[in-house]
Amino acid sequence: MALLSVLTPVLALVLCMVAGFLFLKSRAPQSNLKEGGQGKGPSKSGFRPWVDQDLQDDTILAEGGGDEDEWVENDEEKELAHVPYSPQRYPEEAMLQRSSDFYCLMNQRRSVRFISPEPVPREVINNVILTAGTAPSGAHTEPWTFVVVSDPETKHQIRLIVEEEEEVNYRQRMGDKWVHDLAPLRTNWIKEYLDVAPYLILIFKQAYGILPNGKKKTHYYNEISVSISCGILLAALQNVGLVTVTSTPLNCGPQLRLLLKRPANEKLLMLLPVGYPAADATVPDLKRKHLEDILVAI
Amino acid sequence: MALLSVLTPVLALVLCMVAGFLFLKSRAPQSNLKEGGQGKGPSKSGFRPWVDQDLQDDTILAEGGGDEDEWVENDEEKELAHVPYSPQRYPEEAMLQRSSDFYCLMNQRRSVRFISPEPVPREVINNVILTAGTAPSGAHTEPWTFVVVSDPETKHQIRLIVEEEEEVNYRQRMGDKWVHDLAPLRTNWIKEYLDVAPYLILIFKQAYGILPNGKKKTHYYNEISVSISCGILLAALQNVGLVTVTSTPLNCGPQLRLLLKRPANEKLLMLLPVGYPAADATVPDLKRKHLEDILVAI
Repeated sequence: MALLSVLTPVLALVLCMVAGFLFLKSRAPQSNLKEGGQGKGPSKSGFRPWVDQDLQDDTILAEGGGDEDEWVENDEEKELAHVPYSPQRYPEEAMLQRSSDFYCLMNQRRSVRFISPEPVPREVINNVILTAGTAPSGAHTEPWTFVVVSDPETKHQIRLIVEEEEEVNYRQRMGDKWVHDLAPLRTNWIKEYLDVAPYLILIFKQAYGILPNGKKKTHYYNEISVSISCGILLAALQNVGLVTVTSTPLNCGPQLRLLLKRPANEKLLMLLPVGYPAADATVPDLKRKHLEDILVAI
Repeated sequence: MALLSVLTPVLALVLCMVAGFLFLKSRAPQSNLKEGGQGKGPSKSGFRPWVDQDLQDDTILAEGGGDEDEWVENDEEKELAHVPYSPQRYPEEAMLQRSSDFYCLMNQRRSVRFISPEPVPREVINNVILTAGTAPSGAHTEPWTFVVVSDPETKHQIRLIVEEEEEVNYRQRMGDKWVHDLAPLRTNWIKEYLDVAPYLILIFKQAYGILPNGKKKTHYYNEISVSISCGILLAALQNVGLVTVTSTPLNCGPQLRLLLKRPANEKLLMLLPVGYPAADATVPDLKRKHLEDILVAI
């Protein structure tokens, strides 16, 4: 009884400390996502990787960011000249025609999962990548790397990685709702185009930069910037009659990064197989929204 | 003493329950970000709104997502036909020329902060918006709303909101590092173009959809999808000789959503002032990376 009357206050004190610790922990940002996946068996109702993956990379890096030591110490940048800008101007009639023609061109673009093995001139791909690189980016950081894979063995390795993860995605991680929502598109974990397409373009976002002195450089809005760049890339592909599908292979990023020997500051954002469409290519008969459904005029 | 020997075990039990509760809470996703801002005085080293804002909207909604009741119950979708797809094909020489011409066009695009008040034909803007709407999106959800403002009073209200928040951003929230990194671009919180430009295009992402029966529809990868759409929009603007600057007005989203009477599922992603460049427009003399800096060929 005496022992109990001593131990119980001690236990109460220990529990106070535990409760205090957990309370403080629950107020801190979550940064315990490990590279390599979402962890085992996440509950399906809480599984939203299109948000979590946005966060996954940057959160880990945030822990080390923000010190004075990591500033971009470059006085030359501050003296950047500002120069006149006077781009091409078109008469109104030409603007109407050009805007209409470009809309027609882009409205023909579809995501295509059946790609021909026929080779595509490398220079065309280079021009497409250069075009993507004209995108705006936060503080002009240009936080993108385009890995263009044509080597058959590497493409096959990519396919093995993606299909293995996608099968788990479809069978387990995505959950019934997501699989259901994709049903009209008739997708599954078999991605034959990864072997067949002449090029695979893997778009990596640079979550931060590395300066010559080894210090980190902040890449503001890097995911939005790289996604904007992807939009311009898609326009460039459509412009030359090439097709692709904009895929975001869930949980494949780290393995692909290692396979392609990309550094730790790069995270896979999208994988685009590129080529001519297969002769028997099909697409789901989807319709796009009308102007009044997407535009609000004030 | 007798009272103490009764109360202390009770206290221990209560503390166990509190500790257990906090432990479970610390394992759940964080969803305590309020609409309206990041909270008061965030530490500058932890302030990364380009990540937090990605999360901010969707996390709040996650709490209510995932129930069976909210499925897209639409059997018609499952029976969507798949149709042959055979787009325009160009000879290799034409592909080379087209890809080179499009690169030249897009390489002339710059972010321009000095816009002329000269009117722009509405139909051109409509075509540009339609073109943006041809972007791919997660599960074809098309999670975008383009609010096109030409009313001078509304533009002025937008300017007041943006400048007020931007002044706080520049003076406090962004921190010295971010302000330093922007110095070469000579930006500040004065945004004259918001009054002057004939159109302001505010791009809202729909964090989730609302079905006719009032239930929620998941919008997979909505932020990436809308950003891709923005890239296509920028290409469409460049194609007709119009200029813009791709701005992400920090902390202005909720106020602008209310001003423009957008529903709660819509969150402001980007604000683009659109028009012809001012006669004396200037741009910072920035250079773009070369092909070998952005492309890795395997």
